[in-house]
Amino acid sequence: MDTMGTLRRTHYCGEPAESDIGHEIVVCGFTQKIRDMGNLVFIDLRDRSGIIQLAFDDGTAAALLEKAKTVRSEYVLMAKGTVRRRESVNKELKTGMVELYVTELRILSKAQTPPFEITDQSKVNEELRLKYRYLDLRRPGLQQNLILRHKIAKVARDYYFENGFLEIETPMMIKSTPEGARDYLVPSRIHNGKFYALPQSPQIYKQLLMISGYDRYFQIARCFRDEDLRADRQPEFTQIDLEMSFVDMEDILKINEGFVQRLFKEVLDVNIPLPLPRLTYKEAMERYGSDKPDTRFGMEITDLSAIVKDTEFTVFKNAVAEGGSVRAIAAKGGAAKLSRKEIDKLTEQVKGIGAKGLAYIRWVEDAPNCSFAKFISEQELADILKALGCEKGDVALIVADKNRVVLPVLGQLRLTVAKLLEIERTGYNFLWITEFPFFEWDEESGTWAAMHHPFTMPMDECLPYLESDPGSVRAKAYDLVLNGIELSSGSIRITDFELQQKMFTLLGLTKEEIEVKFGFLVDAYRYAAPPHGGAGIGLDRLAMQMCGAESLRDVLAFPKVQNCSELMSACPSEVDEKQLAELGISLIKK
Amino acid sequence: MDTMGTLRRTHYCGEPAESDIGHEIVVCGFTQKIRDMGNLVFIDLRDRSGIIQLAFDDGTAAALLEKAKTVRSEYVLMAKGTVRRRESVNKELKTGMVELYVTELRILSKAQTPPFEITDQSKVNEELRLKYRYLDLRRPGLQQNLILRHKIAKVARDYYFENGFLEIETPMMIKSTPEGARDYLVPSRIHNGKFYALPQSPQIYKQLLMISGYDRYFQIARCFRDEDLRADRQPEFTQIDLEMSFVDMEDILKINEGFVQRLFKEVLDVNIPLPLPRLTYKEAMERYGSDKPDTRFGMEITDLSAIVKDTEFTVFKNAVAEGGSVRAIAAKGGAAKLSRKEIDKLTEQVKGIGAKGLAYIRWVEDAPNCSFAKFISEQELADILKALGCEKGDVALIVADKNRVVLPVLGQLRLTVAKLLEIERTGYNFLWITEFPFFEWDEESGTWAAMHHPFTMPMDECLPYLESDPGSVRAKAYDLVLNGIELSSGSIRITDFELQQKMFTLLGLTKEEIEVKFGFLVDAYRYAAPPHGGAGIGLDRLAMQMCGAESLRDVLAFPKVQNCSELMSACPSEVDEKQLAELGISLIKK
Repeated sequence: MDTMGTLRRTHYCGEPAESDIGHEIVVCGFTQKIRDMGNLVFIDLRDRSGIIQLAFDDGTAAALLEKAKTVRSEYVLMAKGTVRRRESVNKELKTGMVELYVTELRILSKAQTPPFEITDQSKVNEELRLKYRYLDLRRPGLQQNLILRHKIAKVARDYYFENGFLEIETPMMIKSTPEGARDYLVPSRIHNGKFYALPQSPQIYKQLLMISGYDRYFQIARCFRDEDLRADRQPEFTQIDLEMSFVDMEDILKINEGFVQRLFKEVLDVNIPLPLPRLTYKEAMERYGSDKPDTRFGMEITDLSAIVKDTEFTVFKNAVAEGGSVRAIAAKGGAAKLSRKEIDKLTEQVKGIGAKGLAYIRWVEDAPNCSFAKFISEQELADILKALGCEKGDVALIVADKNRVVLPVLGQLRLTVAKLLEIERTGYNFLWITEFPFFEWDEESGTWAAMHHPFTMPMDECLPYLESDPGSVRAKAYDLVLNGIELSSGSIRITDFELQQKMFTLLGLTKEEIEVKFGFLVDAYRYAAPPHGGAGIGLDRLAMQMCGAESLRDVLAFPKVQNCSELMSACPSEVDEKQLAELGISLIKK
Repeated sequence: MDTMGTLRRTHYCGEPAESDIGHEIVVCGFTQKIRDMGNLVFIDLRDRSGIIQLAFDDGTAAALLEKAKTVRSEYVLMAKGTVRRRESVNKELKTGMVELYVTELRILSKAQTPPFEITDQSKVNEELRLKYRYLDLRRPGLQQNLILRHKIAKVARDYYFENGFLEIETPMMIKSTPEGARDYLVPSRIHNGKFYALPQSPQIYKQLLMISGYDRYFQIARCFRDEDLRADRQPEFTQIDLEMSFVDMEDILKINEGFVQRLFKEVLDVNIPLPLPRLTYKEAMERYGSDKPDTRFGMEITDLSAIVKDTEFTVFKNAVAEGGSVRAIAAKGGAAKLSRKEIDKLTEQVKGIGAKGLAYIRWVEDAPNCSFAKFISEQELADILKALGCEKGDVALIVADKNRVVLPVLGQLRLTVAKLLEIERTGYNFLWITEFPFFEWDEESGTWAAMHHPFTMPMDECLPYLESDPGSVRAKAYDLVLNGIELSSGSIRITDFELQQKMFTLLGLTKEEIEVKFGFLVDAYRYAAPPHGGAGIGLDRLAMQMCGAESLRDVLAFPKVQNCSELMSACPSEVDEKQLAELGISLIKK
């Protein structure tokens, strides 16, 4: 094999253009493909920037032509030559107008035949691709995703630093707390029987940094959650994490909106108009049945309670009478695709998520076919159709129950129906959700729990009702939603030691529990804290949205699969008994 | 307590200048101190940028003056007022020409009396300060260190990104390997009995990224090593990590030198001339007895072997005859401080690190006092003094042994003596160390071990001697040294699969061991790899040097102490039996 010697790259493969014609350049990269046509040889040479065609022809020295013929897929080459106009322009390539007429070729490394072809079109199964991740990572699509991810992080730092944020590293081996999701633990060798935890987020530390006067904190932080298996989650994920002092909610929304606008302009050249739309939690639930609605399409929820409250149909009447409601979505033009059979499937689906059933009106023929026709009057049916704006060709799907069932069920149904009807969803619909309830009633334990986290500041106007009407207390918490995905979550924190104690009491925590769960953080607030708040923005999800990727695995260099293992290195793995003994632990025999 | 309402900061405390006189501004921050002189009140308000004096006087509304009098140390305030010239200029403060004549004061948060005064002069013990780290972090000195650290990371990203590097995140939960230092382990809940490891560095992943064609990789990466206790080490530390393709050693040194120059100029306004000086490993050892010499002072090692090889003094003669050497350092003007007693202490010290003894010549009186006078001739003594350039007032310290004892012992001695003599060491002396030996003979196992790591490329001219003379093989490895501290370490990697196998064989590894230790990484090289190499730069040490800090704890927000515990949160800590059971582990009862 050859060495580079003193030869050095002058251009990336994707760079040569018509303006380079006649110039001598040096490129290097991986062999995408080779076409040997006897006295003509073409090699497509690939690097992270693109592909250039290397050309050898009857003018090429015989030894060089012979050498070119020995090249195989994925060989690493360095080539010097002159840029010339291509005979047949390749419009698929950035460099398609030109080619490199090679005068010197160095084969720097030879490759075995790879287990699969390295193209974005390769249909090989993902498991094999993950096992050979280092080869899959050669795919231009994946490379562009990771380059885009790099740009996101760069714009984030540029933007927040320009706005006075300091990047401060917080520890990765921290104290385990019984709060929140499950911690990953790290046994201590020096302190046998004790453990560190990997951070679920830098939450505690960024609040402390505000107490310490750092004013504006930023970090792109790795976070860890040992959660039960769910589709498209990674045990470690990355958060653009920030916190700022001497601000209220509006200040934080404004600075983060500015980031969104700058990011999309710089990276995708997409204009995001500001201010971003907002919905309160209540509005979002009532209109979309979700606190992270996809607003790229309508199909909003309509409340039919007023129309049906006195109907003979007891399912509807009772739901309203018992404080619940009857609500519906209208699938415009959905009658053809939403056959009876399809609606039966939807019924099963909604039953699976807590509904008792699904009523419907399907209007295919001249008259609407209504699943509860015999129980309601013609006038009521007409009123329902009118309220929903339903016409021939449409389907109405109706749920009656308590609100906490009706709304999320219709929210889910809305997404399922949009998918079934293939409703076009394009663009980037950002949305702030504000005024989250502070408390969430936990049926199981019969106590109030904090919906965001217990350090979240209640809204000023709710402070008088903390004890008298906890259910009505809204928080200075805000989520940023993009196309139905929760991108960011944040809040203003409680900085008043006394108020914090009161909130803990309302959450049913004893002094001991407060001490165990939040000990030093709560104490820190005794020494004064500026008003502060912050947010965490999910970098992986953001990258996924901006890349148009289908999975988090497509925006991470070395992802784990659903059971949290990593296929390339076969991790996690067994370790020596000796190592465990040093850590003071042993395996439980099953 | 007050709220901010709609009032917002217009200036940081360190900003108001004479040009602001007459302007109305708003500042906020922490109360450094309050001086109540009856009808005059002054408050020093502090934020991360500096301190501004808030002034209240007989023109101040009575209620406002009374309010100002209630302020205590560390209260968080927001103040609106007019900038005016100070009566008595404070030259200690950036803002010392002006003060803020307050018209509106908001007390945003009250503080308990802190357990220690928050100033850089505070002499309270470090343990207490670490327990209340959130208060200690309010100290301006510590704040400036973390701001400087932020700047280092920012310049690093700016520089390397401008040079085409991509920041790519590598996983933190990886496969444990038996190579290198001890891994921190993370038990798996889903795969009981198996473990992840926290990365000691992203080494494997960055090499894979080169194989995958990412061309130039950069990351500021957290690394973890469960090492035995040593002074000033942290179990987690941060590395500026990079790797680049289609380069040889010179290219990497050049790009990293460029970073050093840019960094010191931008952050400290210090000019570092390029190219940086270089020494080969051999030169560094022979001249300074160290592969990370502090070159801010001379006191180089002199080889006396030629002079003493035929002396009657058998200690010297035999050392030379047995292939070792007799070498010395000269402590110019050291005779006064290096008393006999002091030299005895030095003798004990060198015995502690492997020397058999320490010979000396101490020249205080008219004639030199030589510890081995009776064994050598006058001529020999004169020759020794001449070789060392010793005169009256100087001390020569001489060690005779094998070279691998003589050199490091004198290297250590040189540093100790420099400290004793309080030799001035200022400035920033950078130095590349190159041509490290590839192999290191491991006496214990009687095998060759890799000095850097087994993926390091031997120098081209050494390839013919791999088998015949392993001891002479030098590697394309390079360390960057600053003032005697190893800042960075790196190498060109072996990209030839066959050569890699040969090196493994020379290192005595069996096929099985290769598979267990390096399995998928070695396999990856079968599919071709561009020539590549890289380096890791210790961010913590770099920050420590640039801050002039005495300890890593002064450049980290939340450091751990020597036994790897963190005093603020009392971490590591015990966890629930239930958690352990889920992980399939139990504690070994002692």
